[in-house]
Order: sequence, then structure tokens, then C-alpha cells
Amino acid sequence: MAPRKTSRRSSAKKSRSDDAPIAILSDFGYRDHYVGAMKGVIAGIAPNARVIDITHGIAPQAVMAGALALAQSWRFFPKRTVFLAIVDPGVGSARKSLAIETHAGARFVGPDNGVLSLAAKEAGLARIVELSTAKYRLTNVSATFHGRDIFAPAAAWLSIGTSLRSLGPTLPEMIHLSIPAPIRRDEMLEGRIIYIDGFGNLITNIDRATLASFAASFRADKLLVRIEAGAPMEILQAYTGAPAGAPLAILGSFDFLEIAVRDGSAASHFGLGEGAPVTVSVSM
Amino acid sequence: MAPRKTSRRSSAKKSRSDDAPIAILSDFGYRDHYVGAMKGVIAGIAPNARVIDITHGIAPQAVMAGALALAQSWRFFPKRTVFLAIVDPGVGSARKSLAIETHAGARFVGPDNGVLSLAAKEAGLARIVELSTAKYRLTNVSATFHGRDIFAPAAAWLSIGTSLRSLGPTLPEMIHLSIPAPIRRDEMLEGRIIYIDGFGNLITNIDRATLASFAASFRADKLLVRIEAGAPMEILQAYTGAPAGAPLAILGSFDFLEIAVRDGSAASHFGLGEGAPVTVSVSM
Amino acid sequence: MAPRKTSRRSSAKKSRSDDAPIAILSDFGYRDHYVGAMKGVIAGIAPNARVIDITHGIAPQAVMAGALALAQSWRFFPKRTVFLAIVDPGVGSARKSLAIETHAGARFVGPDNGVLSLAAKEAGLARIVELSTAKYRLTNVSATFHGRDIFAPAAAWLSIGTSLRSLGPTLPEMIHLSIPAPIRRDEMLEGRIIYIDGFGNLITNIDRATLASFAASFRADKLLVRIEAGAPMEILQAYTGAPAGAPLAILGSFDFLEIAVRDGSAASHFGLGEGAPVTVSVSM
Repeated sequence: MAPRKTSRRSSAKKSRSDDAPIAILSDFGYRDHYVGAMKGVIAGIAPNARVIDITHGIAPQAVMAGALALAQSWRFFPKRTVFLAIVDPGVGSARKSLAIETHAGARFVGPDNGVLSLAAKEAGLARIVELSTAKYRLTNVSATFHGRDIFAPAAAWLSIGTSLRSLGPTLPEMIHLSIPAPIRRDEMLEGRIIYIDGFGNLITNIDRATLASFAASFRADKLLVRIEAGAPMEILQAYTGAPAGAPLAILGSFDFLEIAVRDGSAASHFGLGEGAPVTVSVSM
Repeated sequence: MAPRKTSRRSSAKKSRSDDAPIAILSDFGYRDHYVGAMKGVIAGIAPNARVIDITHGIAPQAVMAGALALAQSWRFFPKRTVFLAIVDPGVGSARKSLAIETHAGARFVGPDNGVLSLAAKEAGLARIVELSTAKYRLTNVSATFHGRDIFAPAAAWLSIGTSLRSLGPTLPEMIHLSIPAPIRRDEMLEGRIIYIDGFGNLITNIDRATLASFAASFRADKLLVRIEAGAPMEILQAYTGAPAGAPLAILGSFDFLEIAVRDGSAASHFGLGEGAPVTVSVSM
Repeated sequence: MAPRKTSRRSSAKKSRSDDAPIAILSDFGYRDHYVGAMKGVIAGIAPNARVIDITHGIAPQAVMAGALALAQSWRFFPKRTVFLAIVDPGVGSARKSLAIETHAGARFVGPDNGVLSLAAKEAGLARIVELSTAKYRLTNVSATFHGRDIFAPAAAWLSIGTSLRSLGPTLPEMIHLSIPAPIRRDEMLEGRIIYIDGFGNLITNIDRATLASFAASFRADKLLVRIEAGAPMEILQAYTGAPAGAPLAILGSFDFLEIAVRDGSAASHFGLGEGAPVTVSVSM
């Protein structure tokens, strides 16, 4: 998936604060004070940094969903943004705590379980360090809340100019997740659902470029998308190309093929979950 | 409904930033990164503008609910606030993209489906433009996410001083929604439920002024409110005027007549939805 | 429970704004515009103050849950933060409206129903006033939304330097809640569940200090935790000490004993709610 260009280079204004923005993503949800405590810690260290919520609604401990949401977001933020991404089922275990610099300028902070990996790879990994310097953590580190005690302080210190290297020693590698590639078999492209959004749209792993090259190889104008138990669908240009309540396929905001239902939820309509197969073939 | 005066004119401090605040309302929910991506775009264009979430919990594609929530909010914000309101089932279709100036000072940005209309009318429509200037959009505009690609950039550019006219050509009109007026029939005022809030309060379309004039015409001190399958209720001054678990009627924060249940949810108690009838009559 | 030291004193930067941060906690949820209206009011009075959401997901009218979340958060924020905490089932009744100064520097604003009391006691009560000065409220005060009309303005005025005394007369006392203490009976420590978080962790009222002194009195290395219908659990150092799907006990981020399920929800696993008993005994 080619990075999309954004308007950030056309910014008309300098930020009044030299501090980099901090963008936060987590699975902490909205019921408890956990996100608030992290933001309190940040406000104490970096009182002038802009703090932006990406989402805290990642499903509990869903590392891959967090990685996808971060990969879909980072390039829309200012160049030097520090991303704090906490989906951390291994908190308190031997899993490492990371901060990452990238060639694109973005910095990433979070656990070494892959949640940072899709975005950091797109941004171009430049250096990984393990968060270990005591003075850049809270004095007391709990066994269950490193978001507050280790990761939020690291992100805040980075945002006000602390160097990545001072946070801890360089690591040669980190854990990587990857989006499974769609498989081409004869005259079919076989993919699967990798993410279901809050509108019930079913996002597949079939990206725009793969779809274009598949269509080109058949000189096909029209492709048909099939999902379990559903009639074949054409790929439309807008949700409103289908009648109300009808399913449709579209290249959505993820730049992946999505199955949607006009004015409704495809997740409810089809009753399918992540991993369900989706195929694309040439219309005869 | 007469505009309520707020304290904003008594503000003791000048804002350090000249940039207008940006207040955002959407149906994007809290599971995904969609709101985050919009805020990233805003941070790149208007790094010093204050960004305030009104809510992202409008029910999916519920344009009228979004319009009501915006109409209930706008007047509590600073005078020159830019409101970005995205409830957009027609994204990618021929529906227009709007920015609006008002006599009250507030600016509104969003799709031309009525979501802006209740608030903009109260604020006094001064000029409507269609968002079409390419340089004030992201370079790539998706078919499914104009909030990020068109509307957020427009709001950000407005907030840093870009003129409304430079965003696109003036439009003579826009789509208007309206709150259905209560009907007076003999000795009854007939209304209906138009919004159900997160506490389960049932908000009706019977506003304070209509209620007062109805009561005055009968020289009535006491009115009775009836809802399907419920006993008649008096209009109380506070939720605590009813015993715990009991239903009551009250002029709530919307300045409309509401049905509530003390320490509970009227929506669960009555099992009624939007559109259900509510009547007011004079106590005999 | 001894206050934990945080990193806030090691802050490397001065805040550009003299205005104190405002941290907000409520039971307003995320569906409606209520939080947004409060923030609009704040932006009009204190345009430069940093506004931080702790959470708006406290269960409707759950005063004790709000008090616990506030008590768990306040010490992670900058010293002079103004905390605005609105869980207010008695809105419109004779319950008082409070602002509080503490020896730790934190200020608290909210209704006099105990929601502020756990945090304010930890921070050291210095002065309580009743919010009554008309010029520090909105012009029109509704019967149902004092968060917007009374409390948010008070917090904003405090944050820009208005003195506590100018908000209203000093009160000699306020309503206090307390966390029920665990009971020691022979060779058992008897506690109960006081809070269930969004991950389904069951937080008990058995704090770290009580647990340590109980263990010390038996010279016990190993304690066993029992919950209704469950096998006895050892107290682990990390969630990952248990196999996936298995229950465990841990001293969590609250500094209270918690029952969790590795990679799952203890609330679903055990089907227990607040108030359910938990016992600790010495392993034989």
C-alpha cells in the first residue's frame, strides 16, 4: 500500500509550542480512569504538547486491531508526532518496552508485541530502543499499568526534546506483525476479513494495488466480490451506489476492499467475523 | 426556542492563540481511528487551534440526532468557533459539502443533508459556500471518508483565518431539517419523542415557550403529561421531586419537556422510542 | 493507602499558560453533547487552560464509582489541577455545589454527594466553599444540568486564578464516602469487590498495606485468595503468570488486590458483581 500524501506539508502555521504532538491509541476503553491517568502524567512532563486521542476503543488485548488502526492513522498527523500505542496483554512479563524513531519523522512508543510494527515499518524504521532509564519512568512502576508508569512518561519526554538514545539501549530488532497477503489462485483473488469497524463495515486484506493488477491481467473492467452466503457484488464508487439496506463492495478509507451495507451494518447483515473468506473474480 | 445567554461574553482571558476553536461532532463512534485521523489532519494545518469533542456517539447515520445535538451545543462555545459536524450517509454521492458563516459568528462545516441546519438557522445564516477548492482538501480524496479528506481540512483552514469565500462558490440554499412543532388540539398539546439521551431521558418536541403559552391560555397552574401506557405525570422542578424509580416530567437542559425516571432510565421503563406520542393537558 | 510519588515534580518544562489544567470526570457517557457543552463553556472562560478528560464513562449516577476513579487519578496530574467531577443524581435538589482547596494543591469542583470526597481527603482538605456567586455561573441555570451551568464555569474561573473564596461562603463540612475496610477474622482477611473495570478485572477493597501486614503476622510467604465458586488463587506478579484463560489474583494499578483472568474478563468468568466477598488466607 503506497503511502497517501496528506496536507501536512501545506500547513499554514507554525506551532506555537516546539513540543511534538502526542497521539494516543489504546484498548483502555472509556469506562475507567486509565486514559485520564496517562494524560495526567503527560501533562506533568510536557504541559505544552498537544495531546490527541486516536481511539481508546480497540477491543481488549486485540494487538492486531491496534496495529491496523495505528497504521491507518499515523500518516495523517504532523511529521514529528509521538505515537503512544498501548495494547498490552503481556504487561508485567518479559516483553520489552520500546521507543522507535523512523525516517519519516514519526516516533512510536509501546510494548514489543507488534502493535507498533505495521506503522513503524511504513514510516521506515531508523532506531529502536528499550525503555529502561529509570529517570524517565514514574518512581513506582506497577505490575499492571505500564501505559501510565513507563510508556506515557517516555512519550512525553520525547515530545519535549529528550533524545531517543537517552531512554535506553538500542535494540537490533522487534516483533513484527504482518497483514496476510491475498492469494491469487487461477482466476480468483482470495482474501479475508481483517477488521470490522464501528459501522459494521468488513475490511478485507485486498488492497487497491493488488486489485488493480489483478484486474489489469484480465483486462477486466468489472470485478465481482463474493462473501460467504452472499450474492456476488460489484465494486461501487460510493455507498450510495447501492439501494438502502443492500450490500456492496467498495475501496474504503483504509485503501482496502470493504464490504458495506448501504445505511446499515454489513457485520450484522452477514453475521461474519474476522478471518472470514472473501473472493474476487472477473465478471463473465 | 429563545437562545440562552451564556457566560462567554464575560470571559476574563484572551485566548493566546488567534485561531478559532474547532468543535467536532460525528457518528464515528469510539472503536476506530476515524476521529483520530481527522484530528491528525487538523493538527497539521492548525497546530495551535483548540480542538474540542462535542460527541462522536451520534447513532450511525442519524442525521436528525446530530442536528439536534449540534443545535443544543453551539451557543455554549466561544463566538467564532468552527463547528465540524459529520453524520454523512451520502458520502461519495452528489450531496454537497458545505461551510457556513452566521450572524452570531459561529461557522459550520459538514455535508449538505441538514445536520448543520438547526444550529446554523439559530445562529443566523449569513453565507453558504460549497467546498470545492482543491488546495484546501487533502491531495487524495477517498470515496468514503470526506470527514478526513474534505471537511476537517476546511474547518482547520477556517480556524486559522482562511476566508469562507476562498473555500468555494457561494450557494443560494441548503437542505433544512426542522423539529416537528407540537400540535394544539382542543384542550391538549400533542407532541412526540424526538431524542433519547444516554441516561434514557425521553426528550420531546414540546418547548418551554409553547408550554407556557398553552398553560397561560387556560390560566392553568398545573399541567399533566401523558405518555403511552403510563399514568399522568406532573411537571416537576427537579428529578429529585419524584421517588426513586418513579417517572416524571421536567423541563430539561434541552429547554424541551422531558420524561425521566428518578435514578433510572425512562427509555427502559416505558420501552418507547423516537416518534412515540406525548400529550399535555390541564389538570382538572 | 500511601500516596504514590509521581514524576510530576521532575517536569522539564514550564507550562506556557499560567492557567491550571482542568481534568473532567462524569457519568455523561459518550452518546450525547453534554460533555461538549461543558467544554464549550470552559473554552469561553479559560481559553488557554488545558482540558483533560479522565473519563465520562462512569455508570449513570454511580457516585461511589466516580469517587474511586477520581481518587485513583488525581495524584498523577500536575499539582494545581482543577478537577471537575460530575456524577449528580441529586441535581436540582437541595444538595450543595462545592469547590474545594487541598493542601496538596489540587482543587475539586462538583456536587456535595461524596463524589469528591475520597480524592479530596487524600489531597488534604484545606477549605470548602459553596458555589453561590451569581457572576461565576451561567446567566440561566437549568434544573437538570448544573455541570454546564454551575460546575464547569466554577472550574474554569478557578483555573484562570479566581480565588476559591470569591465563589461562595465557606462550609464547615461536606458529605464523605468511605471505602469499607477489609475485616480480619481469625486467620482470614475478608474483603469484597468494590469496582469492576472495563477489562472485567474485579477490584477489591484489600489494599497493599493491609495485605502485607496480614502476611507478616503469619510470617507467610504465600497467600491464597478465594472468591465465590472459584478455586483458590495465588497472588501473581504479572497477568502472564497464569495460563491464558485462567483466573489469578494480583496487586493491580489501583494498589488494591484484583481478580483478573489472563487474556480475558474475570467479570464474565465468575459472573460476580460489586459487593461479592473475597477472602485471603495463609497457604498451608
